[in-house]
Amino acid sequence: MILERTLHHFPLDPFSRQARLALGEKKLDYAEVIERYWDRPESLAALNPSGLVPVLVEAKGNDRLVVCESRALLEYLEEAYPQTPLLARDQTERAEARRIQQWFDRKFDFEVNGFLLYEKMEKRLLGMGAPDLGGIRRGRDGVRSHFHYLEQLLAERDWLAGPRISLGDIAAAAHISVIDYIGEAPWEQFKNVKTWYMKIKSRPCFRPLLSDRMPGLPPSAHYHDLDF
Amino acid sequence: MILERTLHHFPLDPFSRQARLALGEKKLDYAEVIERYWDRPESLAALNPSGLVPVLVEAKGNDRLVVCESRALLEYLEEAYPQTPLLARDQTERAEARRIQQWFDRKFDFEVNGFLLYEKMEKRLLGMGAPDLGGIRRGRDGVRSHFHYLEQLLAERDWLAGPRISLGDIAAAAHISVIDYIGEAPWEQFKNVKTWYMKIKSRPCFRPLLSDRMPGLPPSAHYHDLDF
Repeated sequence: MILERTLHHFPLDPFSRQARLALGEKKLDYAEVIERYWDRPESLAALNPSGLVPVLVEAKGNDRLVVCESRALLEYLEEAYPQTPLLARDQTERAEARRIQQWFDRKFDFEVNGFLLYEKMEKRLLGMGAPDLGGIRRGRDGVRSHFHYLEQLLAERDWLAGPRISLGDIAAAAHISVIDYIGEAPWEQFKNVKTWYMKIKSRPCFRPLLSDRMPGLPPSAHYHDLDF
Repeated sequence: MILERTLHHFPLDPFSRQARLALGEKKLDYAEVIERYWDRPESLAALNPSGLVPVLVEAKGNDRLVVCESRALLEYLEEAYPQTPLLARDQTERAEARRIQQWFDRKFDFEVNGFLLYEKMEKRLLGMGAPDLGGIRRGRDGVRSHFHYLEQLLAERDWLAGPRISLGDIAAAAHISVIDYIGEAPWEQFKNVKTWYMKIKSRPCFRPLLSDRMPGLPPSAHYHDLDF
């Protein structure tokens, strides 16, 4: 029986992008449903009561598995499709990958997305008026301080959690790629971060993200460029 | 060789409480270090660069494993100590437990803690002045809407993610117990939620939480009462 896999997501949502990157790394095919989740579509609420994306649905005949929310989805993919692992066997590396995931999902989301994506993307999508310069400034300070930390980390490591690509890199790349889309990633001052991002950006899993285009919100000039 | 286990945490932090409840359910002993993380202690930053709690350290001779951030910590405990599981084997139940975890860690944290804990706890601890009534009102609306959802869920289930206690219940109880500490849990209107909370509150894992006392911020009258 054929497995039908569908991902409900929004292209510029950093949490959805983690799901797309992980599915891509694991070479799993899927159909897509783009959700404008802020409009609270009923079909999405029926799948996920929080109304948030991403949601993965896998159906085989009458059996249907619905996996809601990014962390649950990524842990599920890791358990169900352990080929091309995104968590190492070693507990230190696993803990480090998940630490970095949470760093981005909580700290980066709060200190960067909460300002830059709110001011430059969400306000536009929701018709909430012009961005506030104070908010943008706080977000830019946030990005720089996060890039400083990553720069140090990558001076000693090939990938964020150690010698192998992991869910830490997936989370980081997903969040940073949206910041890059809106032209707010300060590449020039952070060589190690730029090298790491070029490396992950050139992987096949990244291709679908690079062709995302949001009507009314065009990407930065170098967004899809592998040699930026 | 003896394993030395230490948990760095803050008693009224909902994320730290998840770690304590999971360690308690799994009957794992540990030493405690209480961290006033907002003072940014260097010893904590040396363990976890984000400066957040909880952090678990397990040392055996020269081997030391440091697990930072609640989600990483809970997944680690599940992998390392699968006796007394907090995630079922069934993928639907696992996904449901993790969905509810993220519901609390993201949605409840944003819609409830971000208002009620900020106004009534963080401002007190940080000496930021009197609570803002508008903020408290938004937080109270948030709690009620979350309790409504849980009330429905618990009409059909013994535990939040299904027939067994899971990380979903641990996350929910950790967050709600802090709201109860500050006297903001509207028990009277939500019978199912109250029954569920009485059940989890009477488990041995909960005992250490019920004796928490924050200087200058006494708990609500019924906080430690098993029959409230």
